[in-house]
Amino acid sequence: MANNLGVTSRDEDYSAWYNELVEKAGLAEHSAVRGCMVIKPHGYAIWELMQRALDDMFKETGHENAYFPLLVPKSFMSREAEHVEGFAKECAVVTHYRLKNSDDGSGVTVDPTAKLEEEYIIRPTSETIIWNTYKGWIQSYRDLPILINQWANVMRWERRTRLFLRTSEFLWQEGHTAHASWQEAEEEARTMLEVYRRFAEDFMAVPVLTGTKSEGEKFAGAEHTYCIEALVQDGRAIQAGTSHHLGQNFAKAFDVKFQNQQGELEYVYATSWGVSTRLIGTVIMAHSDDRGLVLPPRLAPVHVVIVPIGKGDDRVRVITAADNLAEQIKLAGWDGVRVRVKVDKREKESPGFKFNDWELKGACVRIELGPRDLDGGECPVAVRHKEGKQNIALTDLPTFVGRALSDLQSELFKLALERREANTRRVESWEEFQAAFAGEGGAGFVLAHWDGTTETEARIAEATKATIRCIPLSPLEPSDEEPGTCILTGKPSKQRVVFAKAY
Amino acid sequence: MANNLGVTSRDEDYSAWYNELVEKAGLAEHSAVRGCMVIKPHGYAIWELMQRALDDMFKETGHENAYFPLLVPKSFMSREAEHVEGFAKECAVVTHYRLKNSDDGSGVTVDPTAKLEEEYIIRPTSETIIWNTYKGWIQSYRDLPILINQWANVMRWERRTRLFLRTSEFLWQEGHTAHASWQEAEEEARTMLEVYRRFAEDFMAVPVLTGTKSEGEKFAGAEHTYCIEALVQDGRAIQAGTSHHLGQNFAKAFDVKFQNQQGELEYVYATSWGVSTRLIGTVIMAHSDDRGLVLPPRLAPVHVVIVPIGKGDDRVRVITAADNLAEQIKLAGWDGVRVRVKVDKREKESPGFKFNDWELKGACVRIELGPRDLDGGECPVAVRHKEGKQNIALTDLPTFVGRALSDLQSELFKLALERREANTRRVESWEEFQAAFAGEGGAGFVLAHWDGTTETEARIAEATKATIRCIPLSPLEPSDEEPGTCILTGKPSKQRVVFAKAY
Repeated sequence: MANNLGVTSRDEDYSAWYNELVEKAGLAEHSAVRGCMVIKPHGYAIWELMQRALDDMFKETGHENAYFPLLVPKSFMSREAEHVEGFAKECAVVTHYRLKNSDDGSGVTVDPTAKLEEEYIIRPTSETIIWNTYKGWIQSYRDLPILINQWANVMRWERRTRLFLRTSEFLWQEGHTAHASWQEAEEEARTMLEVYRRFAEDFMAVPVLTGTKSEGEKFAGAEHTYCIEALVQDGRAIQAGTSHHLGQNFAKAFDVKFQNQQGELEYVYATSWGVSTRLIGTVIMAHSDDRGLVLPPRLAPVHVVIVPIGKGDDRVRVITAADNLAEQIKLAGWDGVRVRVKVDKREKESPGFKFNDWELKGACVRIELGPRDLDGGECPVAVRHKEGKQNIALTDLPTFVGRALSDLQSELFKLALERREANTRRVESWEEFQAAFAGEGGAGFVLAHWDGTTETEARIAEATKATIRCIPLSPLEPSDEEPGTCILTGKPSKQRVVFAKAY
Repeated sequence: MANNLGVTSRDEDYSAWYNELVEKAGLAEHSAVRGCMVIKPHGYAIWELMQRALDDMFKETGHENAYFPLLVPKSFMSREAEHVEGFAKECAVVTHYRLKNSDDGSGVTVDPTAKLEEEYIIRPTSETIIWNTYKGWIQSYRDLPILINQWANVMRWERRTRLFLRTSEFLWQEGHTAHASWQEAEEEARTMLEVYRRFAEDFMAVPVLTGTKSEGEKFAGAEHTYCIEALVQDGRAIQAGTSHHLGQNFAKAFDVKFQNQQGELEYVYATSWGVSTRLIGTVIMAHSDDRGLVLPPRLAPVHVVIVPIGKGDDRVRVITAADNLAEQIKLAGWDGVRVRVKVDKREKESPGFKFNDWELKGACVRIELGPRDLDGGECPVAVRHKEGKQNIALTDLPTFVGRALSDLQSELFKLALERREANTRRVESWEEFQAAFAGEGGAGFVLAHWDGTTETEARIAEATKATIRCIPLSPLEPSDEEPGTCILTGKPSKQRVVFAKAY
């Protein structure tokens, strides 16, 4: 059943709920280009808030931004043996550099004489073009470390797409660092994992597990991959960010050596790490409800909407008061920034329509302001994650808003954590495991023993669609670290790992 | 003759000076991809400052950001008749979506079975994909205006490239707005021209002429094009930004109609406007000298560098003092932001090397701090655009720095304006005109009469390499608005127009 703004409920069809919500809340839509999305202003505003927060954290940890070419020479992709298998296959290939008028005058056609000697591919990720560049920048240990991040678009030719969560083109940041030792690269990879964890929990209000990827799930070209894994409302996992220790793999592929302090030539150590517009999908799936978006205030484009109520002379008076109130609330600030306030002055829409519209769009606090409220000195206020309204004195509103935003930010995290805890369990046998993943939807996080082989992981995935989301860095419960026997093969297992169905 | 950091002097070879400066100051370099650059951290930091300032101005004028696909279906390019001639020709064409292992095992090759039914081109500009999207967003006058900006990369297959000024891939912003009337679109195009003028003059410290492009130079698909035109030190012009009134051309090409207040269907009116990483090249060429970059403080990644001098115990003491001083200067602030201060603690480099290095990189103020300066309570300070140093009391430094930055910001504008005025002249005859442009280099702005035809403009360009930079919106001198006769044809001319050789 659809609500009055026409979004399917989560219980009825979680997938349809998500797709409709993303389109109806004005976040994104499909484009004329297969698998590519248009990110609409309301969705892009969330991305800008994410970018600002992440960029500050990257700079605090010593990184600088730079920009590398969109195109990668085809031959670069085959330099690193694992990387080519993982990335070089489904990608957009540029073969020509000119169009010409078609002979029949009906339009344009590819000019066959403008064929490239070597094809380019649109970057699916930038390790190859960046390590080819770093070769020119690094001679000695004094040139290290290089701590660079890039904000960019990338493209992978995906068969099945879903707005934000999996699209052929997406926006992301990719950090690419170069180090003089394995240990320093390892620290960098762990530092950035921690930055991602903090961002997910403190900004997105999404609790995440931190762990290592199995061999089968790690980045193609990495020594090992760290990740943060979130659980959303339908019990599916989302890989929200990854941080790779690349060892010397790309340095060897692109022949990047440095003279160490002992005067010896050594290959450079590397990391790369990234998060993408997928985070927007994650934050939507984590908190939103059947009425629409629920956004953590730190990432909400609209903190407060004031809906003026009244006609004629009243309207003028109410709008003036609303504008004044908006200014007071803005200046009161929250979390070190101005409060983001809108006064919804649309004339053709009813107050009721506006209430629903702003719930759909995820405004954190709604203030209803009419002539009688002005006379009485208080007005009804609704906070997005709570039912009903309360009357608040107009003079208290700036303070009330600050408190409400802080509450909302922490409440959402608490609710998501409770939900994750309620959806995390341990199973001991293959029968139990199969039963857990028997349904169509997600089944939460399932901690189980695994013999550590890629073969077993593949067999489990084939039988249940569950994959290993991560090998946790620290046990969720002390017993998770105790050895046991693999649920499928019965072979020895060092520790429990986290299984889930994933987006 | 090269200076001690190896940059050719401007007098000797302006073009070589620029190219060497861009590379040696760590701003950008050529990449392995033909015509595409790597923007290095110091160059990207300038771009980030530009983005922040422009983005604020766009938002103050009511615009929101969004993101549209990188790829454009080939057929879209031929929808608008002029646009296809201007843009669809030299561009990167995506024809395939998969690579496969080559049969000989030597690498990867394009999979011939993965040929696209319709090719895509990498956006050279986004009018077509955006207007195809707007079609779904606009039904009635109530959906208008749409005021959207996009920060993105674009690609045009350029034959001759120069870092920042002309590259195959570049970064830019492109505004795309939709309006219910011609007049409103016209106001928008003029508003954004004014935003660009303010940005160029107040942030880049580069005076610009505002004007209209001739038919021959306007945007392919525009009704008319406004532009800002800068003059740099070698007397060449740079088109620094453009704002196009597109009329109903793209709405017609993509069939985008709206119901107006009278209930009639009408095609939507449009504007587009953009500036790019070319602005980085412009700001470098406008102010820098033979010692390196000179940057206006509002766009300088480093406002102040403190070079600690001293060894052993002194070094510890001096560095502690430098860090404290840096903190005080930062917090004192300038122009509403923290002052960007670096303490150069490199151990292997001499103070002399550091002085030259920071002049090369365009730090606005250099503070030299040694143990004797600490004891004496004052230290030598150099401001980037002035010769020599002066001694400043340590306690006065935060105030001094603020004043020095304000002076530098306004002085650079004043110097550039004087230079432009000294390089702007009026000529009355074809002989004078030819003589003005006879040399190899630039010849400043030349105001002359022109008969208004594209044919004459082309003949002038062929004979002299000078093009019409703009038809000024307001006369530089009152007499510029008086009618006259064309320097080439002798036919009647309504007003003087601005000629120059351009980058």
